Amino acid sequence: MKAAIFRGGDIVVDTLPEPVPARGQVLVKTLACGICGSDLHAAKHAHRMVEVTKRIPGRVPMDLSRDVVFGHEFCCEVLDYGPDTERRFKTGARVCSMPLMMEAEGPKGMGYSNTYVGGYAEQMVLSAPLLLEVPNGLPTEHAALTEPLAVGVHAVEKAELKGDEAPLVVGCGPVGLAVVAALRLKGVRPIVAADFSPKRRELAVKMGADLVVDPSRERPYGKLEAAKRAAIFECVGVPGILQQIFEQVPRDARVVVVGVCMEPDTIEPMFGIVKELSLQFVLGYTPEEFARSLQLLANGLVDAQALITGKVGLAGVKDAFAELGNPERHTKILVEPWR
Amino acid sequence: MKAAIFRGGDIVVDTLPEPVPARGQVLVKTLACGICGSDLHAAKHAHRMVEVTKRIPGRVPMDLSRDVVFGHEFCCEVLDYGPDTERRFKTGARVCSMPLMMEAEGPKGMGYSNTYVGGYAEQMVLSAPLLLEVPNGLPTEHAALTEPLAVGVHAVEKAELKGDEAPLVVGCGPVGLAVVAALRLKGVRPIVAADFSPKRRELAVKMGADLVVDPSRERPYGKLEAAKRAAIFECVGVPGILQQIFEQVPRDARVVVVGVCMEPDTIEPMFGIVKELSLQFVLGYTPEEFARSLQLLANGLVDAQALITGKVGLAGVKDAFAELGNPERHTKILVEPWR
Repeated sequence: MKAAIFRGGDIVVDTLPEPVPARGQVLVKTLACGICGSDLHAAKHAHRMVEVTKRIPGRVPMDLSRDVVFGHEFCCEVLDYGPDTERRFKTGARVCSMPLMMEAEGPKGMGYSNTYVGGYAEQMVLSAPLLLEVPNGLPTEHAALTEPLAVGVHAVEKAELKGDEAPLVVGCGPVGLAVVAALRLKGVRPIVAADFSPKRRELAVKMGADLVVDPSRERPYGKLEAAKRAAIFECVGVPGILQQIFEQVPRDARVVVVGVCMEPDTIEPMFGIVKELSLQFVLGYTPEEFARSLQLLANGLVDAQALITGKVGLAGVKDAFAELGNPERHTKILVEPWR
Repeated sequence: MKAAIFRGGDIVVDTLPEPVPARGQVLVKTLACGICGSDLHAAKHAHRMVEVTKRIPGRVPMDLSRDVVFGHEFCCEVLDYGPDTERRFKTGARVCSMPLMMEAEGPKGMGYSNTYVGGYAEQMVLSAPLLLEVPNGLPTEHAALTEPLAVGVHAVEKAELKGDEAPLVVGCGPVGLAVVAALRLKGVRPIVAADFSPKRRELAVKMGADLVVDPSRERPYGKLEAAKRAAIFECVGVPGILQQIFEQVPRDARVVVVGVCMEPDTIEPMFGIVKELSLQFVLGYTPEEFARSLQLLANGLVDAQALITGKVGLAGVKDAFAELGNPERHTKILVEPWR
């Protein structure tokens, strides 16, 4: 089968052996797979990512001397089952799954793995118990947004906002937009969202933001209701953003760190201290949140179409990585390996 | 009057004009004033402290070209009142106060101020509404520990520990010991405390720690009940300690940052992210917590005597600053300006 492979620091299209489902696994055809900012980061800072992963107990780093196929935001079609595996869904059924493989020692990640190919390949194997059928009528490309939406849903759940908290979403890339959507679905309003890009601010409004701010023109923190506690969702994930937030937020603010900053970052704790700030780092989602996100999309509660700005085949992945640097043009590009 | 003055980067004893209480102020004789780690830091990194303070809205930095008298952990004796000021306490009454001066625009700090001398002086003025009488029978030197104890009480209150959380106090200087005492008073047990110094570990046990750990021999995190959520009280306050905690704590841990790190600090957010850590920075205390701390001391619920390792007159302040670098010899040195 064909795949867009991360090999030697580059993205190349080549042929790989077709994966063979083991017991408890399902062979699927990849219908659509979103390109995530983490994939871009992994391609750019692969060695750094490996180095950090090595220092985190229980995580298996990529071996960069071997092939890796990225892609963890997918919607697939059931092709076949491994031996002794219950055929829960018919062949041809469309499914989503958390990007995890259940192994005897515990779940293993996919998408940054030498063992399991991710969604930038014509076929994958998935863990049978994790499959969720795409509800009838939900377009495949919308179902592929389940994973990034779940990231936002989880961040908002983990934040456990109280009624006296005023949310501000800093950064309206796919993660920030998912947080905006999740806040709106949760009924937490008004939602303020900030991004330098006019296009991204427009999308934030489509996702449910009540007020959008261009940080190059004004500080977004002034837009929050002064009587409420500021709840900042940091969805940028680059070095320096935490300190900027520390300096600008009001006293007693809460910062939910949803952006994935893979670099070392310098803060001045004094700003956190004198303001008695709190931080909550978040990652991923629970199985329930993932399933709920698929259902929210199926119920048409999120304007999924607005987020999809491009579709490419495997040959287009490399260029898409470069294109995604432009927030005016792109939010989510889907890879359709069968193209 | 005489004072130990921070002047030109040095501590010198010299004569200052006696302070004159204005309306709403009380003139007091300083009976005892503890030397705080922040005072040591301020003396060593004064310019840095000024620079950071300048960038925090509402804070007035010290003017280092003028005299500053440190000291914000004091017990005093009422000498006289300003004009039109209710004489709530008799002359000679012993009082404590939060180190704040109430001004029309709001409270101003004392102890790092060019306007108000702190407790390393024979006399001070205090804000009349903030005075608390020392309960009969509580020794002056114990009453002077109200402020540092309140720091621990506040940290524990702000942490809002749930029953399923296991506390670990990292660093058993005066701040860490106050946190241990406050945890014990709150009934949160078992309390694990870690410090490199045998003397400090011994004090931690006196303050109520159930288990003490020497981090040079073993990682303290392994001593926490695995079924509970780790609640780490960071009471060291130097660059690097946050990242060390990030790397070593278990998943989902909570870090209460009580240590006052005045330097920039580098963290690797990825460790916080993959473990979904949360941080709560804390500072100071509420008036209620301050009053409660005085009462806890008066009720004999904290072994105050164990914390006091030295007493000096004004002439001894400079040497005491140097002495406090040795955790085996010293915990809290009290300045008695009348000596």
